[in-house]
Amino acid sequence: MTASRDTSRPLPDPAALARLKETVGPAGFLDLPGDTDPFLTSFGGTFRGEAALVLRPASTGEVARAVAICAEARIPMVPQGGNTGLAGGAQPDRSGSSVLISLDRMRRVRAVDRHNDTLTLEAGVTLADAQAEAERIDRLFPLSLASEGSCRIGGNLATNAGGTQVLRYGNMRALTLGLEVVLPDGRIWDGLRALRKDNAGYDLKQVFIGSEGTLGIITAAVLRLFPRPRAVATAMAAIPDVPAAIRLLGLARERLGEHLSAFELMRASSLDHAIAAVPGLASPFSSRHAWYLLVEASGQEAGNTLGTALEAVLEAGLEDGLVADAVIAASHEQRQRLWKLREAQAEAQKHAGRGVKHDISVPVSVIPDFIARADAALTAAFPGIEPFTFGHVGDGNLHYNPIVPADWSDGEWRQKSAEINRLVHDVVAEFGGSISAEHGLGQLRASEAERYKSAVELDLMRTLKQVLDPLGLMNPGKVLRDIPRE
Amino acid sequence: MTASRDTSRPLPDPAALARLKETVGPAGFLDLPGDTDPFLTSFGGTFRGEAALVLRPASTGEVARAVAICAEARIPMVPQGGNTGLAGGAQPDRSGSSVLISLDRMRRVRAVDRHNDTLTLEAGVTLADAQAEAERIDRLFPLSLASEGSCRIGGNLATNAGGTQVLRYGNMRALTLGLEVVLPDGRIWDGLRALRKDNAGYDLKQVFIGSEGTLGIITAAVLRLFPRPRAVATAMAAIPDVPAAIRLLGLARERLGEHLSAFELMRASSLDHAIAAVPGLASPFSSRHAWYLLVEASGQEAGNTLGTALEAVLEAGLEDGLVADAVIAASHEQRQRLWKLREAQAEAQKHAGRGVKHDISVPVSVIPDFIARADAALTAAFPGIEPFTFGHVGDGNLHYNPIVPADWSDGEWRQKSAEINRLVHDVVAEFGGSISAEHGLGQLRASEAERYKSAVELDLMRTLKQVLDPLGLMNPGKVLRDIPRE
Repeated sequence: MTASRDTSRPLPDPAALARLKETVGPAGFLDLPGDTDPFLTSFGGTFRGEAALVLRPASTGEVARAVAICAEARIPMVPQGGNTGLAGGAQPDRSGSSVLISLDRMRRVRAVDRHNDTLTLEAGVTLADAQAEAERIDRLFPLSLASEGSCRIGGNLATNAGGTQVLRYGNMRALTLGLEVVLPDGRIWDGLRALRKDNAGYDLKQVFIGSEGTLGIITAAVLRLFPRPRAVATAMAAIPDVPAAIRLLGLARERLGEHLSAFELMRASSLDHAIAAVPGLASPFSSRHAWYLLVEASGQEAGNTLGTALEAVLEAGLEDGLVADAVIAASHEQRQRLWKLREAQAEAQKHAGRGVKHDISVPVSVIPDFIARADAALTAAFPGIEPFTFGHVGDGNLHYNPIVPADWSDGEWRQKSAEINRLVHDVVAEFGGSISAEHGLGQLRASEAERYKSAVELDLMRTLKQVLDPLGLMNPGKVLRDIPRE
Repeated sequence: MTASRDTSRPLPDPAALARLKETVGPAGFLDLPGDTDPFLTSFGGTFRGEAALVLRPASTGEVARAVAICAEARIPMVPQGGNTGLAGGAQPDRSGSSVLISLDRMRRVRAVDRHNDTLTLEAGVTLADAQAEAERIDRLFPLSLASEGSCRIGGNLATNAGGTQVLRYGNMRALTLGLEVVLPDGRIWDGLRALRKDNAGYDLKQVFIGSEGTLGIITAAVLRLFPRPRAVATAMAAIPDVPAAIRLLGLARERLGEHLSAFELMRASSLDHAIAAVPGLASPFSSRHAWYLLVEASGQEAGNTLGTALEAVLEAGLEDGLVADAVIAASHEQRQRLWKLREAQAEAQKHAGRGVKHDISVPVSVIPDFIARADAALTAAFPGIEPFTFGHVGDGNLHYNPIVPADWSDGEWRQKSAEINRLVHDVVAEFGGSISAEHGLGQLRASEAERYKSAVELDLMRTLKQVLDPLGLMNPGKVLRDIPRE
């Protein structure tokens, strides 16, 4: 490891490290390479950094004292939740000058308020545990992600996590009423209000949500709960083209309103790869179609009201030529089988070959144009590239991950990946879209974002960073490229 | 007016005023007292200020140029929308040193995107016009306020407006996807993105929404649209006490889910006063009850599904002793009659006497305790005071406006109003509530807020203000007390 250490930054003062260890006690830190490794390497191994110490504070007070020591000793800090991020937001750089602060021991449920429909949780609670806590009082915490067993509430907040239920319930931001944050100087901001309406001053929590740990460390939050849906109706529709998806979405929203909870698009080839990659998967249709949609609605209705409404949507779609074929799940097991086809997209992608990932969003109305334009530009520029697309089309969010030709070497793939990113993101920008819909910028897209943001916007972002973290110690190099320290 | 002018601040440089007039042209300014009066006096006449000039720019470019001139000449600016605010947020101070910038001529609809379910509007579009624009494409823009005919989108954004549909659709913040803002130095930030998911950097729009014009001037926004509900079911329930309201809310949320669109509480005496004040109003019940609830659900369902579900909620409430009596509107006309009882609360209040207003929120679960504690404290401290309470109990938001004894003199009322505010807001704070749920702080509550916010929170707010508006020219004295200029 030492071989690759970036020596441009000074290693922390050993006395400060000793004080940090003392602050959190023997259970609160790791400093042996074997122990720290899982924290320093990202999920999937894409990002890897070095740290002088991994801290695992057990309370907000410990976080605050640790941050104050780091600030005093000018030690960069990298906050980490479940380490499931895809943009390298929770990995330090390779200098070894940082302290990684994991919130994974802060797992207390501070309050459960059934009549207010709120949970107050510490940052280290996993998303799955938050969901279970809600279920215990017959409520729903709707955030749902592939990594929900490992990702943590603090990370979900820091990245404004999305997932499969955004269409109905919104992003993490929309699910949050209050925050507790340790500021970059070690002060604690207690904004743990459990209020649905509060216009008494600036809404400071909004500044920290989605800031990827660059403005402070979120230590606890008040989250909104919802009634648990009593009924769910799930269908898969085969559609002729992407414009049909957008028109069917309009129909579905009109008939199902906010009941519509998932509207997920897949290419024919994505489905083929999923079926080839995962044993036991099968297409629910007798013939192959160009595109598929997974459509789901959920609600409180007794009986089959929702199923009937969803059927009516699909029938109207068939009549209008928007739907070529459709199946509605008649049982929980059938429902799960349809979802498996969507959930297997990650495996499908691996089966298809090596991909170049994009987590983009555009206005829903221009999704067809975006796909057409990006497909055409890519296949013209990179012969043999295979479009691979799935995602939350109801939110305008696509995982647009073209598969590169099998004969590309590692070096070719690395070099051309940047060119492919540029090409796809330029098309995104033309359509007024975002180059990071739900994964955040992290270290992966911090410089790329500079190309697409206006000078005014970058200046506002840097101004916020500068004033809230004047020493530039809080997760440096993430979201914004590293700002030189004072 | 000159008699009461506060002379502690210098009047603007006449040359700068001339440049401002030139920038906006003859149709873009008013400087005669008779013409400027409607802009300088708040709705209801509570707040009154002076201005050197009222500007009415017609475009974002004109706003930007005017702001740049004001910044250069160190002239304070007071942005104004429909001038319907209740906290004096759109009135200048009495020094006459400011320029008032009304957005009322910026009324363009910039884009309508039916498939993306978005409207892009300029700040001066009235809320009613925004609703009509949505209706034109068979969509709903759900924000709904008493002042919707006059209030403007820019003001709704600046105050993060609430109203009667928050329970189902959220505050103005939740309805906003993008913003265009003129910054205090005259630069334009174009954040008019029409995306439901965008995690590429800090979500800057959140900083400006709800900041009451103290950080910049919002000139345009992208707003979310929803399907127009096809069915609505409305009921009024008589309930024995406030805890019953909270338990019935739980039942309603479980059965109706997000269909529940209104859950409004009124005291028996409030209803009595409304009926006495407004000709033609009548109680729908044969006997008098302690409290009343207006409950409404809306959705896409065909037939009477919603009505049946609402009836089931009320029946369950009757069985559990939560409901003493209930009526469900059988026609549009009956529905409107029930709503009139709720909408007449402002007149009811005037009929009851002189009140002291509070726009507070607490966690929904502690509403009964809050009302009990505040009622007891008030009647103990001020014999003869009459509790008067109505509001959006489903959001934890009450307009808690006790009526003072008829024999209090004007002077007594003014002096004791401050004591009553203090007493009520101290109870709010004990319950973790907010002293401004939906009206904002404006100039009315800026100093009061200092009592209830932590030093860290006030410091963060001042830091944001200082860095985004270093000259302290943007709506000074609102939200935060005036910061001395550099």
